[in-house]
Amino acid sequence: MSNLLAETTWFTEKCPDAGSAFSFEVIAKLHSETTPYQTLDVYQTKYFGNVLTLDGLIQVTQRDNFLYHEMMAHPILFTHPNPEHVIIIGGGDCGVLHEVLKHKEVKQATLIDIDERVTRVAEQYFPELCVSNNDPRAQLEFTDGIQWIAQAPADSLDVIIIDSTDPVGPATGLFSAEFYRNCRRALKANGILIHQSESPLFQFNLIKAMRLAMRQAEFNHLQLLHFPQPTYPSGWWTGSMASTQTPLHEFDEQRVLQRTFSTQYYNSAIHKAALAQAEFLKNTLE
Amino acid sequence: MSNLLAETTWFTEKCPDAGSAFSFEVIAKLHSETTPYQTLDVYQTKYFGNVLTLDGLIQVTQRDNFLYHEMMAHPILFTHPNPEHVIIIGGGDCGVLHEVLKHKEVKQATLIDIDERVTRVAEQYFPELCVSNNDPRAQLEFTDGIQWIAQAPADSLDVIIIDSTDPVGPATGLFSAEFYRNCRRALKANGILIHQSESPLFQFNLIKAMRLAMRQAEFNHLQLLHFPQPTYPSGWWTGSMASTQTPLHEFDEQRVLQRTFSTQYYNSAIHKAALAQAEFLKNTLE
Repeated sequence: MSNLLAETTWFTEKCPDAGSAFSFEVIAKLHSETTPYQTLDVYQTKYFGNVLTLDGLIQVTQRDNFLYHEMMAHPILFTHPNPEHVIIIGGGDCGVLHEVLKHKEVKQATLIDIDERVTRVAEQYFPELCVSNNDPRAQLEFTDGIQWIAQAPADSLDVIIIDSTDPVGPATGLFSAEFYRNCRRALKANGILIHQSESPLFQFNLIKAMRLAMRQAEFNHLQLLHFPQPTYPSGWWTGSMASTQTPLHEFDEQRVLQRTFSTQYYNSAIHKAALAQAEFLKNTLE
Repeated sequence: MSNLLAETTWFTEKCPDAGSAFSFEVIAKLHSETTPYQTLDVYQTKYFGNVLTLDGLIQVTQRDNFLYHEMMAHPILFTHPNPEHVIIIGGGDCGVLHEVLKHKEVKQATLIDIDERVTRVAEQYFPELCVSNNDPRAQLEFTDGIQWIAQAPADSLDVIIIDSTDPVGPATGLFSAEFYRNCRRALKANGILIHQSESPLFQFNLIKAMRLAMRQAEFNHLQLLHFPQPTYPSGWWTGSMASTQTPLHEFDEQRVLQRTFSTQYYNSAIHKAALAQAEFLKNTLE
């Protein structure tokens, strides 16, 4: 079988920012293509299940994606008083969409990924992440999220989740004050956004730059969320939440306790824990 | 210079349990020896400062050791009502000892490592971890911690911190019910122990086995603490606390707020956050 690699083959992702690398043992390369936007590979691995990479960077593994996907969806949705209209920028693997649609308050969730191939490949190799793609409340649009947000009607959205790749290549514009300003305009007054913001140990300068851009876009409330994500550099990941009115350090605990869906990582104690800031961050963020 | 490696040399640690590996870029190998107990190497790295490995496994890096050392020391010391007599088993790099001695309540802290060479090498390459070794309250003993605890007077200790290597080789006996039983005997009635307990994602079976052994040793209260540790497998690490009387899910927050020493990671919010259990752990641990 031509797609079988030697059993001892390892896939390695280098993180030049930190002089570190993470590797996993590969059983087989299941898929490889060059889309109009990036290279896309899927590996069958010994312990992480299927793994999807874009431009050689790990995006999602079957073993640990629950951490990232739950934490990009549930804290923001339980912080917003009534999240009905949700936009996901990026997130073509559909894992965040699946978590968002677990919330019955959500009336419409639109995923906007520039690269349709990510979703089509995810449907094949990560079917468990795509089980909600046919939910009547789900909409999938394969277009440029930056333009989409710039053209969105003002005051139309409750929640924007930016599930982007790293701030290189096509995702760069997603980390700018101009993009955040368009998000703020598209959000209702009590709307909230969250953007994945990498490792607080390895990429703290990025977190600071994102906060500056969010403040320039006149978001008054900022909140950094922490969670483990073993297959991303450092294994310690963050999401940056921003709002103009809605406080971000509290949430409706009753709604969390009364939720009717199951999670593997998220619960009310984990939500509170994710809000805690390490001493070295407190000193710099405040 | 014979100890300079090519600039692009990488050190790699494989984690066979998880089919994963972590690598860092090496500038130079500063030290290498075979002690009576293990091989000991020190690398100068591009981004992690000096790194010490034992039998090829990363023990301490200058960049991220603060996370582990603080979390193995401060939560247990602020949970205990009056920690005067502290024993550290293992921990030859002296990082935990340094954190413990920040607490002015501590009258005596004894480090018991089987391998004196770890400490001597740490003094040379990690001097910042060893600055408290000459504190009059510090005692360093290079002997077998298992025997030491078995012979310790009953009801003599407030806190035992087990800063061991993985449960292979010389450290295996530190994970047994017999060892924990001897710890319980040596602890005063309100005493507490903590033992590093690896990754909840990669080594959850070990955590379960440790909890079983702790219960067999008649520790009634168990509490799993979580913290990031980027250079250990998965980047998500735990300590397991155990006591017979003292509740472990609460601590004297006033004492934390009034502390007169500085930390890089630990504070009262982080302490509370470390107590939160992921949903998949709650279901199994309870």
